[in-house]
Amino acid sequence: MPTRKAEAEWKGNLAEGGGALKVGSGAFEGPYTFKSRFEEGQSATNPEELLGAAHAGCFTMAVVAQLSQQRLTPTRIRTQAKVKLEKVGEAFSITRIDLETEAEVPGVDEATFQNTRLMPNRIVRYRKLSLRPKSI
Amino acid sequence: MPTRKAEAEWKGNLAEGGGALKVGSGAFEGPYTFKSRFEEGQSATNPEELLGAAHAGCFTMAVVAQLSQQRLTPTRIRTQAKVKLEKVGEAFSITRIDLETEAEVPGVDEATFQNTRLMPNRIVRYRKLSLRPKSI
Repeated sequence: MPTRKAEAEWKGNLAEGGGALKVGSGAFEGPYTFKSRFEEGQSATNPEELLGAAHAGCFTMAVVAQLSQQRLTPTRIRTQAKVKLEKVGEAFSITRIDLETEAEVPGVDEATFQNTRLMPNRIVRYRKLSLRPKSI
Repeated sequence: MPTRKAEAEWKGNLAEGGGALKVGSGAFEGPYTFKSRFEEGQSATNPEELLGAAHAGCFTMAVVAQLSQQRLTPTRIRTQAKVKLEKVGEAFSITRIDLETEAEVPGVDEATFQNTRLMPNRIVRYRKLSLRPKSI
């Protein structure tokens, strides 16, 4: 199983400096800054939306895997992730991630679809997920 | 504080179908497939490297924030993330994420740097972090 790599680089201080994020496959490389993380309407990325894409992508693929096991082929599955970053005490934490999935699956009834183990039609919530690494 | 968005879409079954991931800022949109997730040497992305970029980006910015509080300005900080995906029982789990940070910070000695709360020069490990959403 491959070990995946990614990289962040930053130059300068928090307010005026800036960084870049890069993934190992080469599929994405782009800037991120204090503004693109904490302000609206920015065209640069931020860790939260990348985390959202990771979760949405993983969840969608897990649903597809379960349907494929039942020999069901989805015409289309779409998952939207919403990632909420908030100040909690002194630190910023991701307090909630909502995933919402819609699917068109020929030959499957609503009950069967709802009974897949991941419950793809429900909104999935994380009560608290901190992005701060903890050392052991 | 902004709520960040991202999206995944998949068409077809697991083996022959394919998906796309997209982040809300518009900074990244690209394909992902079974191959790009589970095989080496693919140019498309996968959820694990996006998660790695999110963690590396968040951690790096947290280090910069702490240095900036001490009026220290890094010339350059670089964090590499390694994300390990393994089959655990019936499911795939991220069993470990290593972050390794190097920094050039004029005017700071090694002891001061090591004493920052996040310990940026250490390798940070997650014992177990599952990407599978849990409903509540």
